[in-house]
Amino acid sequence: MIDFALLIVIAICIVALGLAAILTRNLLSQDQGTPKMREVADAIRVGAEAFIKRQYSTIAILAIILAVVIFAVYTLTGQQALALSTAAAFIVGSACSAVAGIVAMWIAVRTNIRTAAAAQKSDGKALDFSFRGGAISGLIITSMSLLGVSLTYIALGADPTHTPFVIVGFGFGASFVALFAQLGGGIYTKAADVGADLVGKVEAGIPEDDVRNPAVVADLVGDNVGDCAGRGADLFESTAAENIGAMILGVALFPIFGVNGILFPIIMCALGLLASMIGILCVRGKDGADPMDAMNMGYYITAVISAVFLYFGVQWLLGSTPNWIYFFFAGLVGIALSVAFLRVTLYYTDHHYRPVQEISNASETGAATNIISGFSVGLETTAIPAVLIGISLLLSYWCGTMTGIEGGGLYGTAVATIGMLMVCAYVLTMDTFGPIADNAGGIVEMSQAPDEVRNRMDKLDAAGNTTKALTKGYAIGSASLAVFLLFNAYMADITKLTGKAFEVVNLASVPVFVGALLGAMLVFLFASLAIRAVSKTAQSVIDAVRVQFKDPAIMAGTKKPDYAAVIDITTAGALRSMVLPGILVVGFPIIIGVTMKYEALAGFLMVGTITGILLALILNNAGGAWDNAKKYIETGAHGGKRSEAHKAAVIGDTIGDPFKDTAGPSLHVLIKLLATLTLVLAPLFI
Amino acid sequence: MIDFALLIVIAICIVALGLAAILTRNLLSQDQGTPKMREVADAIRVGAEAFIKRQYSTIAILAIILAVVIFAVYTLTGQQALALSTAAAFIVGSACSAVAGIVAMWIAVRTNIRTAAAAQKSDGKALDFSFRGGAISGLIITSMSLLGVSLTYIALGADPTHTPFVIVGFGFGASFVALFAQLGGGIYTKAADVGADLVGKVEAGIPEDDVRNPAVVADLVGDNVGDCAGRGADLFESTAAENIGAMILGVALFPIFGVNGILFPIIMCALGLLASMIGILCVRGKDGADPMDAMNMGYYITAVISAVFLYFGVQWLLGSTPNWIYFFFAGLVGIALSVAFLRVTLYYTDHHYRPVQEISNASETGAATNIISGFSVGLETTAIPAVLIGISLLLSYWCGTMTGIEGGGLYGTAVATIGMLMVCAYVLTMDTFGPIADNAGGIVEMSQAPDEVRNRMDKLDAAGNTTKALTKGYAIGSASLAVFLLFNAYMADITKLTGKAFEVVNLASVPVFVGALLGAMLVFLFASLAIRAVSKTAQSVIDAVRVQFKDPAIMAGTKKPDYAAVIDITTAGALRSMVLPGILVVGFPIIIGVTMKYEALAGFLMVGTITGILLALILNNAGGAWDNAKKYIETGAHGGKRSEAHKAAVIGDTIGDPFKDTAGPSLHVLIKLLATLTLVLAPLFI
Repeated sequence: MIDFALLIVIAICIVALGLAAILTRNLLSQDQGTPKMREVADAIRVGAEAFIKRQYSTIAILAIILAVVIFAVYTLTGQQALALSTAAAFIVGSACSAVAGIVAMWIAVRTNIRTAAAAQKSDGKALDFSFRGGAISGLIITSMSLLGVSLTYIALGADPTHTPFVIVGFGFGASFVALFAQLGGGIYTKAADVGADLVGKVEAGIPEDDVRNPAVVADLVGDNVGDCAGRGADLFESTAAENIGAMILGVALFPIFGVNGILFPIIMCALGLLASMIGILCVRGKDGADPMDAMNMGYYITAVISAVFLYFGVQWLLGSTPNWIYFFFAGLVGIALSVAFLRVTLYYTDHHYRPVQEISNASETGAATNIISGFSVGLETTAIPAVLIGISLLLSYWCGTMTGIEGGGLYGTAVATIGMLMVCAYVLTMDTFGPIADNAGGIVEMSQAPDEVRNRMDKLDAAGNTTKALTKGYAIGSASLAVFLLFNAYMADITKLTGKAFEVVNLASVPVFVGALLGAMLVFLFASLAIRAVSKTAQSVIDAVRVQFKDPAIMAGTKKPDYAAVIDITTAGALRSMVLPGILVVGFPIIIGVTMKYEALAGFLMVGTITGILLALILNNAGGAWDNAKKYIETGAHGGKRSEAHKAAVIGDTIGDPFKDTAGPSLHVLIKLLATLTLVLAPLFI
Repeated sequence: MIDFALLIVIAICIVALGLAAILTRNLLSQDQGTPKMREVADAIRVGAEAFIKRQYSTIAILAIILAVVIFAVYTLTGQQALALSTAAAFIVGSACSAVAGIVAMWIAVRTNIRTAAAAQKSDGKALDFSFRGGAISGLIITSMSLLGVSLTYIALGADPTHTPFVIVGFGFGASFVALFAQLGGGIYTKAADVGADLVGKVEAGIPEDDVRNPAVVADLVGDNVGDCAGRGADLFESTAAENIGAMILGVALFPIFGVNGILFPIIMCALGLLASMIGILCVRGKDGADPMDAMNMGYYITAVISAVFLYFGVQWLLGSTPNWIYFFFAGLVGIALSVAFLRVTLYYTDHHYRPVQEISNASETGAATNIISGFSVGLETTAIPAVLIGISLLLSYWCGTMTGIEGGGLYGTAVATIGMLMVCAYVLTMDTFGPIADNAGGIVEMSQAPDEVRNRMDKLDAAGNTTKALTKGYAIGSASLAVFLLFNAYMADITKLTGKAFEVVNLASVPVFVGALLGAMLVFLFASLAIRAVSKTAQSVIDAVRVQFKDPAIMAGTKKPDYAAVIDITTAGALRSMVLPGILVVGFPIIIGVTMKYEALAGFLMVGTITGILLALILNNAGGAWDNAKKYIETGAHGGKRSEAHKAAVIGDTIGDPFKDTAGPSLHVLIKLLATLTLVLAPLFI
């Protein structure tokens, strides 16, 4: 018999999918603008679809190989009973993650043109369309994640204390695909962007998104495949992995809460999805208003409703213990952390505050000081988030222990993670809104629309940049809580496999210390490879564009440049260069685990994660701050466009591109991938 | 009665000091070149001495405050017996560290002019002088460190198993002063360098070290106060701290080896000093030969003789156990690691190999790609060193366990550290040689000497750049082994204080994990503050230079620029901005330890150290690679000087300056400071 609570989850998911269907239908019926706009949008759509097709074919091959490896590992370590189900869960997780990426991209390439068309008349409408495009992705991806976990849980059936350990296969599949999707997409988008900017803006002196630039369509394709498809897969796997981690901790509390403790995470996420739907429906664009106001309002509504749901959810499912209210407090810690992370990210990347101001000032003395300043801001941005994460972990753990239940402390951190995750669908909406607005801006620019239309889109584009930075802050905050949970799941898994309590990861032992050192190193090496991949692929883009620029007819604007040629080069380069880093991060921990065993691997995992979180913060925020310092100068500060300060700021922005859109977001996936990988392959490490 | 072995240490130190005296006398009697050269050299000397005077006055105040804090901590935690001796040891350590810095600077500002003078006739002689100038520093600093530890040991007397825990005060004093010396000097040197380059080379288009540039003397002063005095204090504290850490581990083996196990570290270092003397005396400059050949030869001689001494030393002092030969193997691991680190650093920073080539190629498409490429190389350089450190730790631990002694494993890692430290005096010589050659080059340039003299100095200067990069690699390698030792000393200290075995630092517990996260964060924040300090101070230098450049007489070369004004600005800026980061890194761990107690602090310390090692590698090697990519282009590659590629490479080099000469080397000191700080203030954290 299926648990009543699971039926609620499925019902909420169906409602969310229904809402997504209505929004999609409504959106598709909208005006698609001028023929010129359609021409640009078609080129973007065709390029994006071609890339996604080739990318997922490559990923599919890698996933099948890994599924076979998983099956072999389980069979050879005497866990035959789990072999097929874990491998199957892995394949299902991979497939769902791929679908999540494809859905995000599919919606985005259809919403961009309608947003551009709407901008011809009203900026409020343009916000509505792009935001709803984001909402469709957010709703579908979140419900798919919840449905995937729930249905796998039902399919595996039987023993609820056992099932979560098999569902990890689903989570690993999701992470594995997300890693390649984010990495490949991230390389694509930034190679095209850097290449287009360096030859177009810097060498030829033509504006961004100018039709004469052969790399400009590839750049717009990149927004869809990197920011939409990549982030879609990333957040799909986040919700999946974090739910699974929390469920495993719930197993430890089975004697107290029964199945309720195990199902609590997915039920709360479903209620959070409901809260997000309400928040989404509250967002209405108004002509002339700051788009951030409407979106922030929706966010706060979602957060408050989530808190209310959290209260009743905890009472319902965990209310059998007298001090259940402390679990509610732990959940509030998570919600508060999500708000705090958004504020901190805003401080570091918005031009109203000291950091971006400092970078803008430093641009006056040239590129070198701009970059030194931006890099130092990036390093600085680790401080407050690390303190916030530390306080949240300690506080939610303390809340958990106040319930008086054995193992309650850890479960407290799990509840905090879930609290943070409840707003996930809304955050995903804001996140996908960004690249849609960016794309629509590109279409408006390339179709040579009148200035007032461009101005409307510029405002929306700026808001999109802000939301993109904010949601990265959210993603890293939630990941940092989640991984602590996944560590503990790993330790529970090893305990289960060995039958011996694995509760201590002794950093003072030589193998664990060495494991920790190598874990931290892997993060830096991975970031290096990701950044280098962009640099190499951008190099080929630059060469290709230079060749086309030699044709005077293209520069005069009388001949259409060969956009498809650049798209092909970028696609091939991105796919080639995503494979090595991907294999490295999957292979290296396996080697450590097999040679140095599970405790050293735990050290590897934990310190790798700490370093990954901090490095991702550095890369994301430095990149965001450089970007906004450039934008701030473009508003006229420090001499405005075409000043020396602006030239310096453009260089800083270009350096920030692979930081914030390739390496940074890939690190988010990496740290969760490491956790799910160790969980699934645990039998190897004993 | 004083142990016979200690008498040997003192004797070797006296011989080393004698040799240093002979070299000094010989050097001071040499020709001081043309009046123009003397004029420049005098300006440098006066500037350096003024800075050092002001800097050490500030440091003295901070050190006295901290001594009072230490006294108070010990008195208030009921350790009255230790209060006075620990505070006194701290003051002695601080004073010795200050003297080490002053000696290094004193010699350097007297050797530079004599090297410049020698270069008028012979490049072999120029190498001889600059190398011997380095040797004087190396010998004095190493012997002072050994004498300081030995004499403190003798003065504290009585119980040999107890004394090492008090000597930590000496180590902490040394680290504390070294931190401020390296940080203040590092900020000074790079603010002057960046300021001079940006306005001189980039804006005004005049060559490096041009007499018309008012910041050029400050730049040359910087080489002495940052690279000589700073590194002198740094390596002084390294040898002190590492010896003390190894002695504490020796205490654990007291029942087996008696006092021999405790004195083993300092005796071996003394024998290493002897080996270094032989190596130093073997280096002879030859006209027309590559200076690196002679220095490398000396290094290998030192390493081989050290290995021989190690064999006999182990047999003599640890030979009471049948399997003592395994301790010898552990020591060989350390010597091998020192050679391996030099090779790896060479690979990453020499233009013959892929990394620098890649950066040079990337310069062709502008500053942005140059920087992206350099940054990705920097991140990559963590990989091989981390693996090497990991293997060395595991291997030397394994060797230690093969002796069959309880606690032998840890002592094996201590022996490896000592093996690495034996070549310390020689490495310090090579290290100080770099800035002396750099300075001599500046004097030759500013005194407008003939081209052939400049060419001779350019060759020596290039070798100096290489040795500077290599010795940084050595410093970080030895630090990484040493800190593992210092962790264990900390744990032994806590065990002694609480009377309860402290053997486990459980990373899976929430407070330890949070401590670890904050430890890693502190490293990034510190690097941020150090880099920002350079950027801010450079800004004031730039402003001051621009004002002077408005005077047409200065640009025409008819009026001498006001060098002293720029020196004053740089001095004030560097001193002001070294205080905050310094106080942060001392204060923050104390707060963590007091609020979260000793186990969380251990997590903080260990993960902070891991991150510190890796970040230092990134910053040092990226900086070195950028520098050499620029130099490579200046040899004519990719269009040579004045090409667009060169302009891009100059920007990369400028960014690398604060990385490799301020933040990176300060991190070396930081990680050892954290370790000695936790040791000394351990009573606070229980």
